[in-house]
Amino acid sequence: MNQARQRVVIENVYPEFDGGLFPAKRTVGQSVRVEADIHADGHDLLAAVLLFRDAGGREWSETAMRPAGNDRWSGEFRVESVGRAAYTLTAWVARFRSWQRDLEKKTGAGQEVSVELVSGARIAEEAAKRAKGADRKKLLAFARSILPGAGRGPEECAAAAMDESLGILADRYPDRCLVTEYGRELEVVVDREQARFSAWYEMFPRSCSPDRGRHGTLLDVKERLPYVASMGFDVLYLPPIHPIGRTHRKGRNNATASRPEDVGSPWAIGSPEGGHKAVHPQLGTVEDFSGLVRAARDLGIEIALDVAFQCSPDHPYVKEHPEWFRIRPDGTLQHAENPPKKYEDIVPFDFDTPSWRELWEELKSVVLFWAAKEVRIFRVDNPHTKPFAFWEWLIGEVKREHPDAIFLAEAFTRPKVMYRLAKAGFTQSYTYFAWRNTKPEIESYFRDLTQTEVREYFRPNLWPNTPDILTEQLQYGGRPAFMARLVLAATLGANYGIYGPAFELCENRAAAPGKEEYLDSEKYEIRRWDIDRPDSLREFIALVNRIRRESPPLREDGNLRFHPVDNDQLIAYSKSAADRSGAILMVVNLDPRHTQSGWVELPLEEFGLDPAAPFQGHDLLSGARFLWQGRRFYVELDPSAVPAHVIRLRRKVRTEKDFDYFM
Amino acid sequence: MNQARQRVVIENVYPEFDGGLFPAKRTVGQSVRVEADIHADGHDLLAAVLLFRDAGGREWSETAMRPAGNDRWSGEFRVESVGRAAYTLTAWVARFRSWQRDLEKKTGAGQEVSVELVSGARIAEEAAKRAKGADRKKLLAFARSILPGAGRGPEECAAAAMDESLGILADRYPDRCLVTEYGRELEVVVDREQARFSAWYEMFPRSCSPDRGRHGTLLDVKERLPYVASMGFDVLYLPPIHPIGRTHRKGRNNATASRPEDVGSPWAIGSPEGGHKAVHPQLGTVEDFSGLVRAARDLGIEIALDVAFQCSPDHPYVKEHPEWFRIRPDGTLQHAENPPKKYEDIVPFDFDTPSWRELWEELKSVVLFWAAKEVRIFRVDNPHTKPFAFWEWLIGEVKREHPDAIFLAEAFTRPKVMYRLAKAGFTQSYTYFAWRNTKPEIESYFRDLTQTEVREYFRPNLWPNTPDILTEQLQYGGRPAFMARLVLAATLGANYGIYGPAFELCENRAAAPGKEEYLDSEKYEIRRWDIDRPDSLREFIALVNRIRRESPPLREDGNLRFHPVDNDQLIAYSKSAADRSGAILMVVNLDPRHTQSGWVELPLEEFGLDPAAPFQGHDLLSGARFLWQGRRFYVELDPSAVPAHVIRLRRKVRTEKDFDYFM
Repeated sequence: MNQARQRVVIENVYPEFDGGLFPAKRTVGQSVRVEADIHADGHDLLAAVLLFRDAGGREWSETAMRPAGNDRWSGEFRVESVGRAAYTLTAWVARFRSWQRDLEKKTGAGQEVSVELVSGARIAEEAAKRAKGADRKKLLAFARSILPGAGRGPEECAAAAMDESLGILADRYPDRCLVTEYGRELEVVVDREQARFSAWYEMFPRSCSPDRGRHGTLLDVKERLPYVASMGFDVLYLPPIHPIGRTHRKGRNNATASRPEDVGSPWAIGSPEGGHKAVHPQLGTVEDFSGLVRAARDLGIEIALDVAFQCSPDHPYVKEHPEWFRIRPDGTLQHAENPPKKYEDIVPFDFDTPSWRELWEELKSVVLFWAAKEVRIFRVDNPHTKPFAFWEWLIGEVKREHPDAIFLAEAFTRPKVMYRLAKAGFTQSYTYFAWRNTKPEIESYFRDLTQTEVREYFRPNLWPNTPDILTEQLQYGGRPAFMARLVLAATLGANYGIYGPAFELCENRAAAPGKEEYLDSEKYEIRRWDIDRPDSLREFIALVNRIRRESPPLREDGNLRFHPVDNDQLIAYSKSAADRSGAILMVVNLDPRHTQSGWVELPLEEFGLDPAAPFQGHDLLSGARFLWQGRRFYVELDPSAVPAHVIRLRRKVRTEKDFDYFM
Repeated sequence: MNQARQRVVIENVYPEFDGGLFPAKRTVGQSVRVEADIHADGHDLLAAVLLFRDAGGREWSETAMRPAGNDRWSGEFRVESVGRAAYTLTAWVARFRSWQRDLEKKTGAGQEVSVELVSGARIAEEAAKRAKGADRKKLLAFARSILPGAGRGPEECAAAAMDESLGILADRYPDRCLVTEYGRELEVVVDREQARFSAWYEMFPRSCSPDRGRHGTLLDVKERLPYVASMGFDVLYLPPIHPIGRTHRKGRNNATASRPEDVGSPWAIGSPEGGHKAVHPQLGTVEDFSGLVRAARDLGIEIALDVAFQCSPDHPYVKEHPEWFRIRPDGTLQHAENPPKKYEDIVPFDFDTPSWRELWEELKSVVLFWAAKEVRIFRVDNPHTKPFAFWEWLIGEVKREHPDAIFLAEAFTRPKVMYRLAKAGFTQSYTYFAWRNTKPEIESYFRDLTQTEVREYFRPNLWPNTPDILTEQLQYGGRPAFMARLVLAATLGANYGIYGPAFELCENRAAAPGKEEYLDSEKYEIRRWDIDRPDSLREFIALVNRIRRESPPLREDGNLRFHPVDNDQLIAYSKSAADRSGAILMVVNLDPRHTQSGWVELPLEEFGLDPAAPFQGHDLLSGARFLWQGRRFYVELDPSAVPAHVIRLRRKVRTEKDFDYFM
């Protein structure tokens, strides 16, 4: 019977996931709009406040919540610091304002209200007792002013009593034992802006040498930085840079047997030279790596490392901690498998081991080791094959020391597992984007990601290709397909990435028909890429990345809206600024072979545009400017030129009245 | 790090409301289908069980949950006893069956598996260690049978290992420290059948006297019981039977002033003769009441009392406990009001009183007083003007002593308040049915009530009229409107009720144009009803109630489905048995003035009917039988005859092959 006297109910709070078990996500400067059903018995007016506390703060701040109809209330606050912000809600019966409302009805009906005025003055006096300083004085004066007598008639007092701001003030000091506190403190993980808006470039250091036949090094990667920067990427992600095992090393094209000169898969981590805290000798040293990080930073690029928690059979852990691995009845190590497939060059950790505490601590020390080398972005390999509880703990621990750390989950698995990993703490997540190619597929998937509660905790990072994925669309669609998929990735998602130079050079040879794997994959061999080829998409990519940086609406995900086009091969969507200051409209031709045309229909009012006035469209890809009027307009896209429009819509169009000689 | 080793996640459990704060509702013999998202890292197969415990039970029973696709699992259990049943979930990695699946893939690919067989035998042996008795022996034998050696080759062992039932048995004994327990125990309030299926009749005892001018008594009500029973009602609900106050007593038609002979509103409870635990002297005695309860029971009728927690200014509480009421600054009692309306004959309790504990206890004692007189059904007046916490406590307390108690919430207020009252414990709830008259209104409202989670805790009770509500539809639609609204109430809802004899006598005179109140309302005066009038709907009502009793699908709410008709004045819907054994189809003409006709379209397969075969429709209202084939058929309803069909659909139709001479 503890909460017996709390008449107000607070329920269906949003955002709140799994009873407050998991936080929503935001970046610094973003706001959190909180909604709840708030109601009570009877007909009294209510007051509700949203209490919020910035990361690192100790005191609650508060902001009023407002009713939005049907007993739904909402309030909003901004998060200012990286870390974990918190919010909760409080509501109570607004006794004074309820009294004001009733008084107004009674005087409106011509009823005598002198006794009511005394009641009202008492409510204000009680509030004054709970107030301090200026508020207390104001309330006491207010109470006196509505009390009839001393020359004040009831009518005059009733008029004074209607003061709305003083009514609100009176209700700010409710009897605390009648106040409903929501009870749960809900959290928001607040990240830096890169968590929300980033352009990734994945590259194999082994293939960065300008000298034919020589193994690329971290120094070569440093030389390649200006190239990456020239395309406008701000994250350079390197596959594992650690020593590579010898036992069962894979040969070219994933062959079971390797030749002595084969370099093996970088994901077969660990050799006598070291494990997850070492640099592969052929790439260089830890010092070289630190030099690379610094050089990259000078060009506005962050280095992202691969966190692949698995070992080659030669990893020092195997000898030092055999209890972290599964040993088969014949005494051999259990290698990774997905029956009947075998990955003999890799042994997984056994997370069911009774020594799990030591294992968890060691893996945490790996991440902290690289964090100490100024790495703050980690791309996590196959997180869905390790326990959720492990990730929740690990990411929580790392972010406690480095709240600016970013973790990208490379989990291509069932949707609920992917969402749970995001809830458990991953900052960004790979998606099914690579396999969403038709208009209905794209629209339905991105509605799920951006217009359901998923948007609160799952930040998509879109990749048209990866070293593991060369989709059919790219294999057979040629250069237009690469361009279209780039524009889709870069504009559907605020976070996106490509695996290069394979991407900009439109590499499309598959390992075998029907397979989505690369032929002669860098995963197993050194490739030489002619990055200066004239047909490279390098400049197109640079343009797209520049448009992204210069267009605030493209830096967000939740503002995505699809628009009807009367041609299934054309997809149209927009992102607009929350303040209606402008919108970016994308139209992409999904057919890499034929020119497609159609009529796009736009909800101009939502963009702050007047359907009755002309407006300008500026295609940021081609530079062309169009003048349009009305909700429908015609587009035509030739894939052999540029298969997409990225159009900035501008409200203001000059008219004759803008000229001096007008009038 | 407590749950660190539990790899399986259980989330999004249904039914679960507000984090398990509120129970779902069922009646004895119904089943509870429980669903949850259950998944884990990796590719292992999982096992999950639903644990359930009947009301009063101490041990958990369990039933296996089955995957239903997309990581959703479901299981089902039946509730057998009135009270509070509970359920929770447990899930774990099915190690042995995962091993079986992998073994199958490996042998299928022709791989050598002798070491795998040893691993499998070990998993089975570990399970055996945790098992007892016969299961232990079986598992040990199983482990031996799949271990190669002693004349058994790997192929033979692998074949033996595939035994599915033994795989399931092995996985029934998992390592407990790796098992995920959901943690929360969720509850189901289990009521007796009347909570789900009941037909209510409301009647004013004051108007039951057969002698003109004499105040009706409880003995007169007893005489009226056979009449109520003849119409097939099983609940007789009486407005408050307590002493009525004198101060500010209302006159006829809600007049502010009353004459000495005016009887006043029964809701102005309390006089020097007693309060909520007394019987109004003009109605009789507590003993008369007990006699009425017994006589009713003999006719299959339960008496429902009105719980109206408010007082007349003359109620003994006012003198004995002035602290339970609001006193105005001038020393007068604060009467009930909804400004500018005043209800001077009623003073509300002040639930904000510091003496709330005593008040709550006293009000509980009122309900228990009548429960001791064998009353188990309570219709609660305006519950939405008293705190939710009070009701949750009161209903919980009463049901602890009388788990068969039924509470009907008379809250005509905002939807979220109504739903919250239902969650807080009300067994049944009044609805907006009276004001849902057009086809889109009815369809949309009843979809909300029967096809969303609301169905789990909110049991609608549909009333076409009440002493407070005479809708425009009834005022102007005449007898056809009364018939149509009766059929709608009785077939859309498993629980419904009418206020009679006003209803069966088609009383339609309103207090004033535009008002939905009765002229010469029994709330303020004694009425004389000629219940033997030949135009009474008495027999039609009896027929409808008989059809309800004899048609199992009409005893439920969740099975309601609407069907298309190409005429907006015709509404078609069905209720079908869960086992597809039969369906009842309703078609109602919503226009009380004109014959309407149209084509109804039915999803025959959902009813277990073959669209390619003829089927029979038997109109239970008219007795007519139709032979139909195909999904669409024609209906025509003349409101001046009967404005509705209630059709039992029958699969079996005789053909020539049923006759002896065929062949």
